[in-house]
Amino acid sequence: MALELTAGTLCAQNQAYFDKCLEKLGFVPNVLVCYAHDDAKLSAFAAFYNDLMLAPSGLSKLEREMIAVAVSSVNRCYYCLSAHGAAVRQLSGDPVLGELMAMNYRAAELSPRHRAMLDFAVKLTEAPHLIGDADRAGLRTVGFGERDVWDVAAVAAFFNMSNRMASAVDMRPNPQYHRQAR
Amino acid sequence: MALELTAGTLCAQNQAYFDKCLEKLGFVPNVLVCYAHDDAKLSAFAAFYNDLMLAPSGLSKLEREMIAVAVSSVNRCYYCLSAHGAAVRQLSGDPVLGELMAMNYRAAELSPRHRAMLDFAVKLTEAPHLIGDADRAGLRTVGFGERDVWDVAAVAAFFNMSNRMASAVDMRPNPQYHRQAR
Amino acid sequence: MALELTAGTLCAQNQAYFDKCLEKLGFVPNVLVCYAHDDAKLSAFAAFYNDLMLAPSGLSKLEREMIAVAVSSVNRCYYCLSAHGAAVRQLSGDPVLGELMAMNYRAAELSPRHRAMLDFAVKLTEAPHLIGDADRAGLRTVGFGERDVWDVAAVAAFFNMSNRMASAVDMRPNPQYHRQAR
Amino acid sequence: MALELTAGTLCAQNQAYFDKCLEKLGFVPNVLVCYAHDDAKLSAFAAFYNDLMLAPSGLSKLEREMIAVAVSSVNRCYYCLSAHGAAVRQLSGDPVLGELMAMNYRAAELSPRHRAMLDFAVKLTEAPHLIGDADRAGLRTVGFGERDVWDVAAVAAFFNMSNRMASAVDMRPNPQYHRQAR
Amino acid sequence: MALELTAGTLCAQNQAYFDKCLEKLGFVPNVLVCYAHDDAKLSAFAAFYNDLMLAPSGLSKLEREMIAVAVSSVNRCYYCLSAHGAAVRQLSGDPVLGELMAMNYRAAELSPRHRAMLDFAVKLTEAPHLIGDADRAGLRTVGFGERDVWDVAAVAAFFNMSNRMASAVDMRPNPQYHRQAR
Amino acid sequence: MALELTAGTLCAQNQAYFDKCLEKLGFVPNVLVCYAHDDAKLSAFAAFYNDLMLAPSGLSKLEREMIAVAVSSVNRCYYCLSAHGAAVRQLSGDPVLGELMAMNYRAAELSPRHRAMLDFAVKLTEAPHLIGDADRAGLRTVGFGERDVWDVAAVAAFFNMSNRMASAVDMRPNPQYHRQAR
Repeated sequence: MALELTAGTLCAQNQAYFDKCLEKLGFVPNVLVCYAHDDAKLSAFAAFYNDLMLAPSGLSKLEREMIAVAVSSVNRCYYCLSAHGAAVRQLSGDPVLGELMAMNYRAAELSPRHRAMLDFAVKLTEAPHLIGDADRAGLRTVGFGERDVWDVAAVAAFFNMSNRMASAVDMRPNPQYHRQAR
Repeated sequence: MALELTAGTLCAQNQAYFDKCLEKLGFVPNVLVCYAHDDAKLSAFAAFYNDLMLAPSGLSKLEREMIAVAVSSVNRCYYCLSAHGAAVRQLSGDPVLGELMAMNYRAAELSPRHRAMLDFAVKLTEAPHLIGDADRAGLRTVGFGERDVWDVAAVAAFFNMSNRMASAVDMRPNPQYHRQAR
Repeated sequence: MALELTAGTLCAQNQAYFDKCLEKLGFVPNVLVCYAHDDAKLSAFAAFYNDLMLAPSGLSKLEREMIAVAVSSVNRCYYCLSAHGAAVRQLSGDPVLGELMAMNYRAAELSPRHRAMLDFAVKLTEAPHLIGDADRAGLRTVGFGERDVWDVAAVAAFFNMSNRMASAVDMRPNPQYHRQAR
Repeated sequence: MALELTAGTLCAQNQAYFDKCLEKLGFVPNVLVCYAHDDAKLSAFAAFYNDLMLAPSGLSKLEREMIAVAVSSVNRCYYCLSAHGAAVRQLSGDPVLGELMAMNYRAAELSPRHRAMLDFAVKLTEAPHLIGDADRAGLRTVGFGERDVWDVAAVAAFFNMSNRMASAVDMRPNPQYHRQAR
Repeated sequence: MALELTAGTLCAQNQAYFDKCLEKLGFVPNVLVCYAHDDAKLSAFAAFYNDLMLAPSGLSKLEREMIAVAVSSVNRCYYCLSAHGAAVRQLSGDPVLGELMAMNYRAAELSPRHRAMLDFAVKLTEAPHLIGDADRAGLRTVGFGERDVWDVAAVAAFFNMSNRMASAVDMRPNPQYHRQAR
Repeated sequence: MALELTAGTLCAQNQAYFDKCLEKLGFVPNVLVCYAHDDAKLSAFAAFYNDLMLAPSGLSKLEREMIAVAVSSVNRCYYCLSAHGAAVRQLSGDPVLGELMAMNYRAAELSPRHRAMLDFAVKLTEAPHLIGDADRAGLRTVGFGERDVWDVAAVAAFFNMSNRMASAVDMRPNPQYHRQAR
């Protein structure tokens, strides 16, 4: 049985956030609905997530979503592959790129920048204890600055958390994701 | 070379947080110093972390720290094993318990509640795609409620993020941790 | 560089097969184009494949395609996930089922028959040396007969070959698959 | 309990094949007896297998058998290690080579060609999703042509199928293999 | 290049041991020749080994050799599989049993005692940190006493050492082993 | 239930050894108490161990203890991490070094000699079948002689045995280790 927690009362800010989701996407992403059982946790999660994925960064929004999907593929997370696969398709305008990130990013024809970025993210996912100077140097070589390396790591690390929350409570992706931007 | 990012100017709230750390611990944990290169990220991280580890929960603070260390042991995270190993020793008053969590929690004589809690956290760490109804049921059987299951998962998932950030940027634990509560 | 082999002259039977593909699908699946560098190998492959996936069996065609995709997911085969993911969507009329097989079949709500079938196929993929009497008994318990067990194994085993051929020569799925039956 | 399927009536061609086995080997290999529960499947398997292992190729028959055994060693397939281990001993006239392929090919003193061939086959077996341009280039460097690369891959891929069929149905090697060419 | 160490002068006891090997086996096992670069190490190794494999025990000599080979199969140790595979063939008078231990002990038809013994030895080899009360209980259930459990563990543990020494220095089995007791 | 074996009567030499432990350490290490159920096994173990860890060698005693702890970390052996972690702290006068060896030696700032030594020991632990000429050459490059390579291998191999004995019988470290040299 999936985890059964019912949404509580939302504070004004979170209610406004949900309204904005409904208006812009037509639905509230289920991950937010899941966190809504505890208004404080929802606030903390949304703030963390929005800074990570939407704030200014040397990584484009598409690059951050590519990392999200490649990491979620390692962890075989149904929720995140559905939701962020849709985001890659949408932001890139290239539906096949979304498939490639979800199936095996190594089969994609990627720029050296993107290949290094995803190699780092996937190694950090599979064997964080093996990450060392050579891995950071690999990112610098293709042009990532110190702050960019942080951001690659931060997105990859975050989805290692989020994939596990989704699996732990059996989160179900909103059905709308599946058909988006095909 | 470890990631080189210098702390920026802190907002009043974060400055107050650092001052409180200094006052209570005698030092600012290096994880916070690392996030301080970007004040907004520090705020988001601190809010998320403090809700997770300090807010009221069906899990005691010690239990949350035990999960933190057992997860960090799987990921072989030097920073988190040092910092949270110290927390387990301190909160439990049992230095050996801290060692056991860091080395192999299965060698500890644990209550069925704690064994189930750590088995879930470690399986979620090692193979999140295999977590299913039987695993959630295992937690319910030893008395965890729906919200408690969320909290076990949330702490385990968080340290899968935090371990990876620490490894990615080569975070070094404050030297004070090593001698604490031996 | 992907493997570079050019199609040779086809015998009448294989030419007719390609013509039929064009007529029915609008394209010749690239796996067949790849084998066409050697007419005899194409004949052997096509005969083997068509018997496996299309001949009468206690397994429906959809069930055989579900196994194909679940196995290809373990092996992260871009070609087979694309082509057979489309087949699952088409045969089931359920686009989400195709996604689930490709991402993590354990997240799908499956009948006991289908869960046992895929558990067997995936264990045979990941750890063939561990398959034993208990695994075969698990299939019998949910109603599979001796011949059905053979067919589950044969489809799972075949895609362990086919996934590896596709990866070895860098086979690219026909672009038509991506949009089919969404 | 092993899979229980009884041989059906054979078509003239398959009957002739069995007769030829009896005449040349003194026995019908049990893998063929297993497939004989369905005459069409036996035909397809025999055609595929004979093209793969006996047709003209840039790889010698011994090289194909060496790949068969090294792959079967990874998959710990009792049937294939017994049958194809005997083939390596026989074709090479070097009993120790058969042992080395079955135990750990890395302990053998191999030519660069053979080492590269087996490294490719074993990587394709263990981690097909990681095979890329560098692996194909490794084969080309030691002299394999495009078609030879296909053949290395095809033999390795085939035994990933055949090993799994043997384990799935608990195929038992004919006792004659054990003493052959010692 | 394999490790190059030349045998030193042997003490009388070790010289006598070598002479006895020559007399009884027709050769000195290469593992002993390897240790002979340091007479004290040879003495310690020989004493440890002979107590383990030859002293009175609730395990027969054949059972101890079966464990040796099953463990060496996990570790893919060419030296130990050759030498101890020969011992299993010889002590059992059943050449096929030697093959099965080296290839995949799960494919053998074993008594519950032997299956439990090898399951324990192989789990201890692959994942020593997971061994717990249930594993020890599994041995007791099929009749092993406390001292017998020690001996199962001791033999399995020893070959985890010996396999690694052989691989580390590239030990080559004496050619005589290959043909023994076929 | 841990293994229950009671110490038997000790020979004079072993009794003297225990007395010396008591005098020098204040306790008899539990590993010796465990072996004392069989006086001959205790003698063989002690002789082997003392030659390995205390005899003259190109490796210092601290280096041998560092290998012991890094290997025990891979195998997650509670007994050996406790006992030999204390030894590293004591011999180095650097408590943090002991922590690093137990948690993740890659996070330590090591000389090229020590990094190569531990990389070899850990690879030999995790994948002995992959050790080859390049690995031995790596040790030679940083200055290890042939005999030193043997000693690195011998210590790493030994703890692969000892870790497994400790886990198999549920050995408990003497409580004194935990506080030593902090």
